[in-house]
Amino acid sequence: MDLSLAIYVLAFFPTTFALDNGLMKTPPMGWLAWERFRCDIDCRHDPKNCISERLFMDMADRLAEDGWRELGYVYINIDDCWSSMERDKEGRLQPDPQRFPGGIPKLARYIHDRGLKLGIYGDLGTHTCGGYPGTTLDKIHTDAQTFADWGVDMLKLDGCYSNSTEQEQGYPLMSKALNATGRLIAYSCSWPAYQGGLPPNVNYTQLGEICNLWRNYDDIEDSWDSVLSIVDWFSDNQDLLQPAAGPGRWNDPDMLIIGDFGLSLEQSRSQMALWAIMAAPLFMSNDLRTLSNDARAILQNKVLIGINQDPMGVQGRRLLKEKTRIEVFWRPLSDSASTLVFFSRRSDMPYRYRSSLGKLGYKAGNYKVYDVFTGKTMPALTDTTNFTVSINPSGVVMWFLSPTKLWGREGEHPSLLHNHVEEIVHPILL
Amino acid sequence: MDLSLAIYVLAFFPTTFALDNGLMKTPPMGWLAWERFRCDIDCRHDPKNCISERLFMDMADRLAEDGWRELGYVYINIDDCWSSMERDKEGRLQPDPQRFPGGIPKLARYIHDRGLKLGIYGDLGTHTCGGYPGTTLDKIHTDAQTFADWGVDMLKLDGCYSNSTEQEQGYPLMSKALNATGRLIAYSCSWPAYQGGLPPNVNYTQLGEICNLWRNYDDIEDSWDSVLSIVDWFSDNQDLLQPAAGPGRWNDPDMLIIGDFGLSLEQSRSQMALWAIMAAPLFMSNDLRTLSNDARAILQNKVLIGINQDPMGVQGRRLLKEKTRIEVFWRPLSDSASTLVFFSRRSDMPYRYRSSLGKLGYKAGNYKVYDVFTGKTMPALTDTTNFTVSINPSGVVMWFLSPTKLWGREGEHPSLLHNHVEEIVHPILL
Repeated sequence: MDLSLAIYVLAFFPTTFALDNGLMKTPPMGWLAWERFRCDIDCRHDPKNCISERLFMDMADRLAEDGWRELGYVYINIDDCWSSMERDKEGRLQPDPQRFPGGIPKLARYIHDRGLKLGIYGDLGTHTCGGYPGTTLDKIHTDAQTFADWGVDMLKLDGCYSNSTEQEQGYPLMSKALNATGRLIAYSCSWPAYQGGLPPNVNYTQLGEICNLWRNYDDIEDSWDSVLSIVDWFSDNQDLLQPAAGPGRWNDPDMLIIGDFGLSLEQSRSQMALWAIMAAPLFMSNDLRTLSNDARAILQNKVLIGINQDPMGVQGRRLLKEKTRIEVFWRPLSDSASTLVFFSRRSDMPYRYRSSLGKLGYKAGNYKVYDVFTGKTMPALTDTTNFTVSINPSGVVMWFLSPTKLWGREGEHPSLLHNHVEEIVHPILL
Repeated sequence: MDLSLAIYVLAFFPTTFALDNGLMKTPPMGWLAWERFRCDIDCRHDPKNCISERLFMDMADRLAEDGWRELGYVYINIDDCWSSMERDKEGRLQPDPQRFPGGIPKLARYIHDRGLKLGIYGDLGTHTCGGYPGTTLDKIHTDAQTFADWGVDMLKLDGCYSNSTEQEQGYPLMSKALNATGRLIAYSCSWPAYQGGLPPNVNYTQLGEICNLWRNYDDIEDSWDSVLSIVDWFSDNQDLLQPAAGPGRWNDPDMLIIGDFGLSLEQSRSQMALWAIMAAPLFMSNDLRTLSNDARAILQNKVLIGINQDPMGVQGRRLLKEKTRIEVFWRPLSDSASTLVFFSRRSDMPYRYRSSLGKLGYKAGNYKVYDVFTGKTMPALTDTTNFTVSINPSGVVMWFLSPTKLWGREGEHPSLLHNHVEEIVHPILL
């Protein structure tokens, strides 16, 4: 791979126009109901887990009280199956009265009072994927205004039950409609996922102008196979996808399933590391009420979050796919820093991978290396120093690197210090 | 499925002849190096993990000191890559002198001194799978005598680099040769795995007469996919495989990978539960020095071990494969007890599965139910009571059941009391 070419391409990022709402200059973080709670509407038998205002209030409490909000996890996002099966007399969407008896504005207040933001779900089409009322073209302005009136801060617009012509009209129209409400509402578009995710069917320049983030590919499932299929698809198509991302406009490989049932701890670390490489939105879909300490430690790793949230907002790439089934990923960060992820696709035992920074495209120089999961700073490397990393099966070793000259006396790198965390938490929209 | 037919078939089990060494009346338990440590012979760079006497002494210490031995985990088994590349002047196998400087007899004493047993590995063929000296037909008596002289308690005989004719001669010959040494050496045969694992290529009646256990299918890898492929193969072929098993002769679906890198906790519980259903040998291949408490709790679950080790020794079966991707497994146990495993192949969210014991083939009556992983005794069920179990994605719910009339006043069932644990630990061969 020609790394200089990649960097040359990266230099053109800022010229693309982003959605003009000023939101999500770094990838959004928060919690989204779908993967873990799906369309469970059986509140009689499963009151704690059904899609209801109680579930979202529970999760808001956890984000606010368990240290998530301070790290940037501020969105509480409703997904499908929240609404009544009928619009109201004025043609507006309304929540299911049994499951959301207080209504959405009250839930929004509950969430805002805790310094968090509320996301909601709609579907461009006759019905949502779960069969609830959809947003047909003639309803776009009504629904945008309803969400704004309710105090919603983000909309995920799915694409079931619409054709490509309707999507071509509808997704830009909703963007304008949201802007027209005067409320800052972040906009997540499922459009590309319905069009195969790739040019020429998908116009990423246009998407960057109308959406803050977009789902490119299949829904994640609670399995390692699902994570791998997503990582493979995004990596195989990185030349087309990587230039689309930047501050305010993000590729979305879908939710974090860390803390659910299907990933080992190694695999959980791998998802978190690879999502940071991809500058991916970090929406957890898990049960924050019962999360294990191990899962929490991975999701709350400050340096890892700082890397994901790097203000330069350049998406990383897979550099190498070795025959040994080791893969190396890289992402450039601000202040000449970078991150490397050494990823093992093996299923036997820890593999000792030997390389040097020079072989991975780094320029001549001295680099300080911090191991993101062990928390250890390692001896400085030159570009020609041979090193060996031991990578566990389905696991990663993740490094934060920077030219030695940039490190201060306290051993802290500027990129690690001025990460976004303070900025994103305080100026909350109410 | 006709359950009465299955029980009818089961009644004929005791008529098959087992290998005449009196060993392994219940499935063997212990630790085996292969899956976790493979053919790592790089003791210079990886002294703690390379195949060496130190590794086996470390693991023996852990089995003896961390509560494993008392639960029945008594075998410490060497796998491939232990030997020198050359036989000695007398034509005998010899261990690698750098990695086993004390020799095998000293290692055997170390292991016996701790109340444990030593297993070793050979290969019927010109070379082992890892390229070390194999046991050709003319070497069978020499090698059997060498192992006996060394104080070895078990032999796994692999089948790389031999053809089916040689295997047909060699596997029975080694059985006789082991018997002829006068030392009780348990015998694990990889033969069926090299012949597709199924009749007519494999004669399970003969295997039961010459081997204590046998590998039927592919090697396990450190991944959930690998566990699933094994469970599927054994279940798809259960009508052929189940009758082969019984006291002293066991199908071996390969090692437990619980505590390694590839399984989530749910998946770890599932492997342990399904291995108990299959009356499988419980050879852990993990690093007992660094095992997590969660993995340890699963591997040391006493009731689960008691079920695996049920003295009746009847292998269980998959009863149902639902369209919902729920599967139900069942194994009959002594004293009219039984175990049920409800297994979810889903990757979305916990699934509420509804059934009754009658639907699962249970006779009319009252049954007491103990949940093996939660440790809770549940309200008694009749065969017609409808129940609902919530099964996590890639997880199990495992029940121990018995007719209510058999439970004593102290709430203990006889099958749970007289499990094998005491019997297997005390009469250790030295």
